[in-house]
Amino acid sequence: MADILASLRSLMASQSPPLDALLVPSEDYHQSEYVSARDKRREFVSGFTGSAGLALITKNEARLWTDGRYFLQATQQLSDQWKLMRIGEDPPLDVWMSDNLQKEAAIGIDPWCVSVDTAQRWERAFAKKNQKLVQTSTNLVDEIWKNRPPAEINPAVDHPLEFAGRSVAEKLKALREKLSSEKARGIIITALDEVAWLYNIRGSDVSYSPVVHAFAIVTLNSAFLYVDKRKVSSKVSSSLQANGIEVREYGAVSSDAAMLASNQLDQATGVNFGQNGVCQNDTCDNDLIWVDPASCCYALFSKLDANKVLLQQSPLALAKALKNPVELDGLKNAHIRDGAAVVQYLVWLDKQMQEIYGASGYFLEGEVTSKKIPETMKLTEVSVSDKLEGFRASKEHFRGLSFPTISSVGPNAAIIHYSPQAKTCAELDPNSIYLFDSGAQYLDGTTDITRTVHFGKPSAHEKACYTSVLKGHIALGNARFPNGTNGYSLDILARIPLWRYGLDYRHGTGHGIGSYLNVHEGPHQISFRPQARNVPLQVSMTVTDEPGYYEDGNFGIRLENVLVIKEADTEFNFGDKGYLSFEHITWAPYQIKLIDLSILTPEEIQWLNRYHSKCREILAPYLDKNEMEWLKKATEPMKG
Amino acid sequence: MADILASLRSLMASQSPPLDALLVPSEDYHQSEYVSARDKRREFVSGFTGSAGLALITKNEARLWTDGRYFLQATQQLSDQWKLMRIGEDPPLDVWMSDNLQKEAAIGIDPWCVSVDTAQRWERAFAKKNQKLVQTSTNLVDEIWKNRPPAEINPAVDHPLEFAGRSVAEKLKALREKLSSEKARGIIITALDEVAWLYNIRGSDVSYSPVVHAFAIVTLNSAFLYVDKRKVSSKVSSSLQANGIEVREYGAVSSDAAMLASNQLDQATGVNFGQNGVCQNDTCDNDLIWVDPASCCYALFSKLDANKVLLQQSPLALAKALKNPVELDGLKNAHIRDGAAVVQYLVWLDKQMQEIYGASGYFLEGEVTSKKIPETMKLTEVSVSDKLEGFRASKEHFRGLSFPTISSVGPNAAIIHYSPQAKTCAELDPNSIYLFDSGAQYLDGTTDITRTVHFGKPSAHEKACYTSVLKGHIALGNARFPNGTNGYSLDILARIPLWRYGLDYRHGTGHGIGSYLNVHEGPHQISFRPQARNVPLQVSMTVTDEPGYYEDGNFGIRLENVLVIKEADTEFNFGDKGYLSFEHITWAPYQIKLIDLSILTPEEIQWLNRYHSKCREILAPYLDKNEMEWLKKATEPMKG
Repeated sequence: MADILASLRSLMASQSPPLDALLVPSEDYHQSEYVSARDKRREFVSGFTGSAGLALITKNEARLWTDGRYFLQATQQLSDQWKLMRIGEDPPLDVWMSDNLQKEAAIGIDPWCVSVDTAQRWERAFAKKNQKLVQTSTNLVDEIWKNRPPAEINPAVDHPLEFAGRSVAEKLKALREKLSSEKARGIIITALDEVAWLYNIRGSDVSYSPVVHAFAIVTLNSAFLYVDKRKVSSKVSSSLQANGIEVREYGAVSSDAAMLASNQLDQATGVNFGQNGVCQNDTCDNDLIWVDPASCCYALFSKLDANKVLLQQSPLALAKALKNPVELDGLKNAHIRDGAAVVQYLVWLDKQMQEIYGASGYFLEGEVTSKKIPETMKLTEVSVSDKLEGFRASKEHFRGLSFPTISSVGPNAAIIHYSPQAKTCAELDPNSIYLFDSGAQYLDGTTDITRTVHFGKPSAHEKACYTSVLKGHIALGNARFPNGTNGYSLDILARIPLWRYGLDYRHGTGHGIGSYLNVHEGPHQISFRPQARNVPLQVSMTVTDEPGYYEDGNFGIRLENVLVIKEADTEFNFGDKGYLSFEHITWAPYQIKLIDLSILTPEEIQWLNRYHSKCREILAPYLDKNEMEWLKKATEPMKG
Repeated sequence: MADILASLRSLMASQSPPLDALLVPSEDYHQSEYVSARDKRREFVSGFTGSAGLALITKNEARLWTDGRYFLQATQQLSDQWKLMRIGEDPPLDVWMSDNLQKEAAIGIDPWCVSVDTAQRWERAFAKKNQKLVQTSTNLVDEIWKNRPPAEINPAVDHPLEFAGRSVAEKLKALREKLSSEKARGIIITALDEVAWLYNIRGSDVSYSPVVHAFAIVTLNSAFLYVDKRKVSSKVSSSLQANGIEVREYGAVSSDAAMLASNQLDQATGVNFGQNGVCQNDTCDNDLIWVDPASCCYALFSKLDANKVLLQQSPLALAKALKNPVELDGLKNAHIRDGAAVVQYLVWLDKQMQEIYGASGYFLEGEVTSKKIPETMKLTEVSVSDKLEGFRASKEHFRGLSFPTISSVGPNAAIIHYSPQAKTCAELDPNSIYLFDSGAQYLDGTTDITRTVHFGKPSAHEKACYTSVLKGHIALGNARFPNGTNGYSLDILARIPLWRYGLDYRHGTGHGIGSYLNVHEGPHQISFRPQARNVPLQVSMTVTDEPGYYEDGNFGIRLENVLVIKEADTEFNFGDKGYLSFEHITWAPYQIKLIDLSILTPEEIQWLNRYHSKCREILAPYLDKNEMEWLKKATEPMKG
């Protein structure tokens, strides 16, 4: 570790101008949340494995900014050469730079790893002290990374219409209409899931997200895919061609962006505006190039004429979020199979905890019958999560996990994005809360579910906290709201029952979920952070409902279902706005043993009983007799 | 009316450059919500009497923009020369101008009546089509307003420390510290309530708000009050002088702002920085002039060097909102006396409705015993509100109403800011809902309360709506939330019970309230509109809790209490943020007859019973035996 920082600093000094600081973000060239092994530069330099974080290396300091989900994990993973900067508590990067770094300092970034939004924000902030953002010509981390994993050649595959629900031709047509209406003549598509969604292709370049490392450029007349051509089979190639999509090498996007800027891209590839390059229709005064400043890297943006750029959220973000009927069907089916896997896992785990650990089990609150457990029989956070993966893998259309399973016992459950490692992870404990947050990629949909359970005797405090989280989860899931409402407004519904006791959680409450794509997708979200991109919740969007409570060093609780937004069947329709509500599509029981009935309202109990009864009904076809008996017991109606 | 528009248009044509349009806002030189009769220019030109609205006169059109509170009222008051523009439904002004007014149009404003924020926003918007905002040298409306009311000379009075709670010296010291910390050497105070609060003076220049028409300038060394000197008695003059405040003529603020900009104001008045003008301390690099862009008019701002202006919310807004202990005591006492007046009014009205109209009364749901009512005995919205004023006027420290009483029967109650007029107002009706929203100015505090009642047999629908509004009112009032939460987040709590049925209301949910000052004050509010000035709710602020529901042509419901923000006594304190809650300080019963118990939770019923029991206890000293018996009956515990 010391070597890494020393090597980086010596490389920083040798740059022209010499760098006083280097920023190493988590993101790849596409601003992805999950990145391939060779793109984990921030993890390589800092040792911190969380999905979000920003490393700063100066001549004599190393600091890492991350958010509340990761405070505990970062504390554990960072060596003492590093200082953790807690977002929301410590000064933000730009303030820290201005207060601590000298005037006119040179601050290096790899412009391929930083978005336009971020780079411009940093430039403005650093300018206050005449500090300068310097774009390095190579990635300095890559230069010192001796054993950097090689690029893999994973095949791109067609995503068939029976799952995609909408043809590439339709998607391109809608996109071009949107370009025209915004006076744009082209768009550079940089987010990996947008490329995959638009062209109905999938891949396996990144763990957990079935995307291909690729860019796309779409103009009013042409469409390009920039990808390592070795990944594209002749079958995929011909279906792309059939849709008028030309495949070019990944690296060509840079020069093609420049060509696009000078209006030569269509011509260069022989796809002219028309005869003699004369425009054939009324779209010729469209002269903007659309890039999404949140996902487009600064390097590509720099190829364009800044005065002719439309810096605006990609239209594909919303188009992708509004699921079509085929995608909705697929998502619902995937969540049923996924729920069955979760129930099978709980049945299995319940049995293990009783047999191996002498726990009273999922249903009973009792003392542990102490047993001497042979080392080989011990269950760990990792071994049980492998079992969970096994149940999922047995289901139709399974293609892998949608994110690293959070399988966490006791204090580890308080680490919001805990990721257990085989060598260091904890053993299961019949006296502790166990939280698992997990999901899978199925051809017909992506899943994400969290349940929190206890196989022994939970304390009254744990029950009160579980029930408060559950109340918030129900309040949000049962909300009805007029069209135009955004997730920022709704967020408080999940917190109010916790706030009553002075409890809270340091993360948002919900995110969109993809159709066999990213497990976290926008453009909407449910969060206490006001969104720059204030996209209201709309019919046919997906969103999770996942409040929690985390007590450092003790336990953590989170409950998460995926919801689909639909029209609400309200008695009135004040203001003719139309009212919306949520449909739960996740099916797995809440643990009744952890519920303190005395703080639930009759309405809440009624909702739980209805949800549980639906669980039984919906999961029945996927469970064997033993599993079904367990589920019946787990979903017995509660009396208010 | 036709004459007014014709005269204005001819005056517009004679300007240099000739004006293609004239904007006439509702505000006076201080951006006040309530303005004196001679400042009601927008009302004079349009006939619309609501408190908020913006008139636009072009060569051949006249349009008025106003918000949801006033849609109905404006429809009724505007002649057919005018077109109503519904904010939130119709295009906003800037869009309309750009779409409908020709390129390079000249659009006139009186720069004394438009805030910096508004003027700059308009300039930017109009620039898109090269339209130009022209500052007229006189107010064109004043020129054609033949019978414009003359300026009144109302005395300014000291607001004694026993009510103000904080001395002028303390307030000036805190203000100057704030100036220093923001590198400002002076501030122009333009909001009337801020001038009154800072200098502990009150007046009667404006109906409903005990302020003096005045500006103030405070520098690090000096303080000035700009006011018609005839209003300042020698007593007031000497207490101002004792605090180092120099009184200057109202009109002098214009030239003094220019002097302040050129750093000559302190010197010109002999209050130098020190000997030979040499700065005596480390404040000399303070070179900014602070003005609040929301309350400072464009005319005054134009006197300053734009590069040396700190355009930021006035620090007095927050200082004034954080009530000191004396003010809080005063407010609580004022609300008790005010609540007693409201109960006395209800007792009186209940008796009248039974005796005159044969109503079943406040407590019983029965048919009306039809009676022939002599014309002289008839009760009208205005005659009963005069009676209500009488009850208030009998209370200690009464100084007038805090806003025009909304006393509204049946369909009129659906007009959110309805203001009944003696000649046209409705008669009381035992078969209709009656809503009254009213408040008073007392020396020790300002009040604001709304109750909705029915003296006959309310329909099941009216009860369901009343109860839904009540549920929202209780949910907001009972909320606990961490420090840092703003009113935008909380707003939804009051709406969720209404949204369940597809109901909503087109106004915010809460505003701050002054200490013998404006009935509406910021900087915080509880609203669904995201605030540009995102001020979190803080301990010792006041805020109203007033959800409603309005059914055009049928009825309206609103319930309003004033709340004080205090520390919450939570069991835990997650994140060490400190948690807050509300204390109700308004005391008057909710009408049990209008409550549909079946949709209240046991918790809500418990809260209502506790509140009602406190009403009895707190109001007892102010009520006679008969009134007390009525109140006991009105506050009998409900069974859930």
